[in-house]
Amino acid sequence: MVNAYANVNEQVRQVLEVFRNRDIRNVFFVACGGSSALMYPSKYLLDREAKGIVSDLYSSNEFIHRNPVTLGAHSLVVLCSHSGNTPETVEAAKFARSKGALAVSLTNVEQSPLAAESDYAIKYGWGDDAVAIDTNYGIMYQIVMGLLEVRENNLKFGPMMNSLAHLQQAYDKARQQFAEPAARFAEGYKDEKVIYTMASGANYGIAYSFAICILMEMQWIHSHAIHAGEYFHGPFEILDKNVPFIILLGLDETRPLEERALEFSKRYGEKLIVLDAKALDLTGIDPEVQGYIAPLVLNVVLRLHANKLADARNHPLTTRRYMWKVAY
Amino acid sequence: MVNAYANVNEQVRQVLEVFRNRDIRNVFFVACGGSSALMYPSKYLLDREAKGIVSDLYSSNEFIHRNPVTLGAHSLVVLCSHSGNTPETVEAAKFARSKGALAVSLTNVEQSPLAAESDYAIKYGWGDDAVAIDTNYGIMYQIVMGLLEVRENNLKFGPMMNSLAHLQQAYDKARQQFAEPAARFAEGYKDEKVIYTMASGANYGIAYSFAICILMEMQWIHSHAIHAGEYFHGPFEILDKNVPFIILLGLDETRPLEERALEFSKRYGEKLIVLDAKALDLTGIDPEVQGYIAPLVLNVVLRLHANKLADARNHPLTTRRYMWKVAY
Repeated sequence: MVNAYANVNEQVRQVLEVFRNRDIRNVFFVACGGSSALMYPSKYLLDREAKGIVSDLYSSNEFIHRNPVTLGAHSLVVLCSHSGNTPETVEAAKFARSKGALAVSLTNVEQSPLAAESDYAIKYGWGDDAVAIDTNYGIMYQIVMGLLEVRENNLKFGPMMNSLAHLQQAYDKARQQFAEPAARFAEGYKDEKVIYTMASGANYGIAYSFAICILMEMQWIHSHAIHAGEYFHGPFEILDKNVPFIILLGLDETRPLEERALEFSKRYGEKLIVLDAKALDLTGIDPEVQGYIAPLVLNVVLRLHANKLADARNHPLTTRRYMWKVAY
Repeated sequence: MVNAYANVNEQVRQVLEVFRNRDIRNVFFVACGGSSALMYPSKYLLDREAKGIVSDLYSSNEFIHRNPVTLGAHSLVVLCSHSGNTPETVEAAKFARSKGALAVSLTNVEQSPLAAESDYAIKYGWGDDAVAIDTNYGIMYQIVMGLLEVRENNLKFGPMMNSLAHLQQAYDKARQQFAEPAARFAEGYKDEKVIYTMASGANYGIAYSFAICILMEMQWIHSHAIHAGEYFHGPFEILDKNVPFIILLGLDETRPLEERALEFSKRYGEKLIVLDAKALDLTGIDPEVQGYIAPLVLNVVLRLHANKLADARNHPLTTRRYMWKVAY
């Protein structure tokens, strides 16, 4: 395990030491919007790996008002806010601690209200210079796999840490590989009024994030992240030749759901953008954790699509009607 | 408690006897589409009430493929399929039992594959002659509040059962009260291409159901159930004067989220349909459980809107492109 720990972020390492002496029985993933979406894969991972630790994921204000009975001294609450300034998430950290829970936050700004209200704050890397293992998704997996290593002796901590050390290289290759298809997507779909996204399992969060943060928020295009299993029980009736769908195929255990949704969509739809993790070069990513890593790389691919779409529509991703402009 | 038990459905009563001798530590709510949506309030109730029993809600195929580690002999899996014939849900019942879990199903058809694959099957009432307490939502609350009564001595079982006994009357009054507004809604919105729904807490499931089953499936109108707390972290940027939103206000602890979403939407939107549970006549519903009951009554109000919309659009709710017509 010495080798595995060598790659662990210094601040995460401190938190893992705290886990050693704490009887953590449940985890709450608490954040808003994109910061919440990036926690979905960690919920998937815990469901699949944790023998005794249970977990839930809630938008910050829902968490506070729902006030789950099981939130208490045996709880770990993982929070995230890029600016460290999201009022609901700052309040959620305070609330969690008032219940005796351990509040661990991820933020890009160490001197922030969220950091101040948390027991531990971990600064993640961001932007062009950041290395993947130290960005938000990388840190999340270090925390949750670290938790399972410390509390439940889960054997995938080593493979996960070694894989995260190769994540940057997978990102770089994906960016190269998908630059051209992303540009084609942008040209082909720049006039669409509605674009759906679809995924399941570990990938659902990135589909959700693309729908609400990229399409609805940053491009003012109607959207909805459809769960690939739910598709056949309602949403698929919206499909026709003119309705665009971005369909994700991951490498986790729910891939058959995504494949089925794609197969059906191909029969009756014509505007399908398929992003298949099988096409990615995942050299250095351990097969044991590829299902968990796939959404991280697909998310980079999605971001590339977002950038190109914004360019093609001449609608920068920073354009807002309300955020940063009016009170709410 | 004798009084409370007097109103319990006979088949539920048998299941509650089974709970007495079983150390149930977690509950999985497993179904697809509308049958899944009707379980959301029960997850909310367990989060708020259960001291030791934890719960998760998954679409049937996601549940099977995700294969949560904690699924086992201490699990209760509650499933639902109207026809008892939904392949993924039948498979999920089989899967749950193969793991040693107790599988309790709700269905309208007692001699169905789902009933055959479950430990216990409860037939719920349906249609114009059914009494509310014995319909799907009523049975769900009997099961989950019954579970908490039996396993954790939760004191709200009595108030819940007495309230469910008055549910039909609340439904009848709501139907009368909202007949006229529903017709106005239908006339005003029959040409819309997109209609969003929004809610939080106990109400989120009915917003989801209306979006995917009524609007997308039965009316081919684009939709997406936005969580009222998430609204401010992405989706609200889609709002302008021409984008219609159905906004639900319930009576549960998350109502402030819905009120905030409404207040903002009123400032920048003009096509808002507000369904506020405070306007309902809930005579006979105990204040202690009104937050749980509100979505059930609001759902009846939503159904009224669906019926009127279908009429105004001359697009019957039974119209399908794919379901019942092609293989998938």
